[in-house]
Amino acid sequence: MWRDALKQIRPISTKWLDRANDRIDNLVKPKGSLGMLEEMAARVVAIREEEMPEIPAKEVFVFAGDHGVVSEGISPYPQEVTGLMVKNFLTGGAGINVLARSAGAKVSVIDIGMKEALTDEKDLIVRNIRRGTRNIARERSMTLKETEEAIDVGVEMAERAFAQGTGMVATGEMGIGNTTPSAALCSVLLPAEVEDVTGRGTGLDDEGLRHKISVVKKAIEINDPFMGDPLSVLSAVGGLEIAGICGLCLGGAALRMVVIVDGFISSAAALVAMRLNPVVKDYLFFSHNSSEKGHQVFFEKEGISPVLDLGLRLGEGTGAALAMQIIDNAIKIYREMATFQEVGIEPGA
Amino acid sequence: MWRDALKQIRPISTKWLDRANDRIDNLVKPKGSLGMLEEMAARVVAIREEEMPEIPAKEVFVFAGDHGVVSEGISPYPQEVTGLMVKNFLTGGAGINVLARSAGAKVSVIDIGMKEALTDEKDLIVRNIRRGTRNIARERSMTLKETEEAIDVGVEMAERAFAQGTGMVATGEMGIGNTTPSAALCSVLLPAEVEDVTGRGTGLDDEGLRHKISVVKKAIEINDPFMGDPLSVLSAVGGLEIAGICGLCLGGAALRMVVIVDGFISSAAALVAMRLNPVVKDYLFFSHNSSEKGHQVFFEKEGISPVLDLGLRLGEGTGAALAMQIIDNAIKIYREMATFQEVGIEPGA
Repeated sequence: MWRDALKQIRPISTKWLDRANDRIDNLVKPKGSLGMLEEMAARVVAIREEEMPEIPAKEVFVFAGDHGVVSEGISPYPQEVTGLMVKNFLTGGAGINVLARSAGAKVSVIDIGMKEALTDEKDLIVRNIRRGTRNIARERSMTLKETEEAIDVGVEMAERAFAQGTGMVATGEMGIGNTTPSAALCSVLLPAEVEDVTGRGTGLDDEGLRHKISVVKKAIEINDPFMGDPLSVLSAVGGLEIAGICGLCLGGAALRMVVIVDGFISSAAALVAMRLNPVVKDYLFFSHNSSEKGHQVFFEKEGISPVLDLGLRLGEGTGAALAMQIIDNAIKIYREMATFQEVGIEPGA
Repeated sequence: MWRDALKQIRPISTKWLDRANDRIDNLVKPKGSLGMLEEMAARVVAIREEEMPEIPAKEVFVFAGDHGVVSEGISPYPQEVTGLMVKNFLTGGAGINVLARSAGAKVSVIDIGMKEALTDEKDLIVRNIRRGTRNIARERSMTLKETEEAIDVGVEMAERAFAQGTGMVATGEMGIGNTTPSAALCSVLLPAEVEDVTGRGTGLDDEGLRHKISVVKKAIEINDPFMGDPLSVLSAVGGLEIAGICGLCLGGAALRMVVIVDGFISSAAALVAMRLNPVVKDYLFFSHNSSEKGHQVFFEKEGISPVLDLGLRLGEGTGAALAMQIIDNAIKIYREMATFQEVGIEPGA
């Protein structure tokens, strides 16, 4: 399934970009004076190939998975928190619920690799591939088959959203310990030094951080992932929710949806997608610069400007839900502002 | 009137800040993981002294004024554009209309110093102090009396909003040429080199920029404003809409409202307010880092982090209307997120 999505992805049309920029330059404001709002609006027009883009529905997908590497002591929170937070997502009390409501977006939660089986949660989308990954500091995280199945879950979610008329999807995740595989993925795929992409996660102290760096190094040493084969890197040092997000990016791009990438973990997943097919980048909007250390390095190396920089490091999709609202404003500017002709002003400089 | 407002301003209560931070640290997320959203929510609680802050209504005030210094050729747009844009604000086709609608905020437009008298615009609030300022490259911009009257208009707008139940006000402006007096104000009051705070405005080329710098220098040389007397600096090299915004900041702070400051010109006005009474800063939220050159210098010198950095340089209040939405999200986080106790998770790190 994901291999089909990968092949379907087409670069956005420069003809539509030009057409969008023509309109933007005719809106009654000095050229370029709405900065990034202009760039975002033009890209949305080109993605959707619509004269007047309209996003009928929006959805945030929160993929939940656990990580065997937690047994190395790389997170201050116990693994049970993944399940407790998923319950919280389903009852509407988490940060992502608040911000998605504010953005007018639906929240869907997928058990793609949770250790705990939540049997009483009827709203949980259960696509569990495995009850947590293996410990990457000792062995491969997932088999290639598990990895492909997890990517397929993400593609399935994109297709499901598309079928319901959704035009904008956001990535989110929950998984105690998941900054560790994300750091490993960034180190191998950017590439970057392990020290430069490994941060404090939910709140490690200096000693905890030093230990986490040694765990990431060990994971890379033991698995010896080959950067030229992104699927195999993902299966070696990634995670199930990360694979799911990678699939959502691929499926979203294949279906010409606006895909909003949340924080560091989501960016690591998007990085895998971009290494599998660089064209996917045309469809991705990176929502914010997380305060997790590696994120800044990711943006610098990839030459990407995130929409927001608010010192967030919660994950869940929270930054993406905020950025959705900014992109909504960009679309409204495009649709609703008057043109120079309409108000009788000369375009000037 | 503005002198009374100045005296009424009280620092926000640290007791309320602490109380707000206690709740924020109990929301189900790692401590500090919502970054600036947390700081903004705490400050709103402390400004409003409400257990659960609620902003019943929001309003953007767009002050319009003209500038005698335009005759020095410092803007690529003719002065008539001020009037044309004001008409556009009143018919709802400008950037600020679109973004304020999106923020659920009312837009009020004040003729505080327009050259042109718009007699047919019933929704325009007319408080014209003078039909444009004098040319600051040759003489004082305004008399002290005119300056005080213009500040009073801003205070009046804050009082008017407050009386209507408004809890959040945003500053906006329209005035061809107004980055020139703003640069002069920043140069004198930060203080900073003229070259460091003078930018391209709506789109000057290199030669235009060099000329503009020389005009700002001349304005400062001729008027010789004394930085220790901010009112006199404002009257020497400021503008009427800038004085109005200064008054809105003072009046808003006196009435314990959340005041959102737009771009470079609004920041120059807020700077005058902060020099008149530094406590006003407790009530101000600086919405964005404009791509106008001096703004970055302003933020660095004042030690302020703006909410957004989207490369905007339109003014009108557009950045403030976007930031309003982010602050709204911060308030929702504060009100709607579950606590650790409610979901049965240990707070952890």
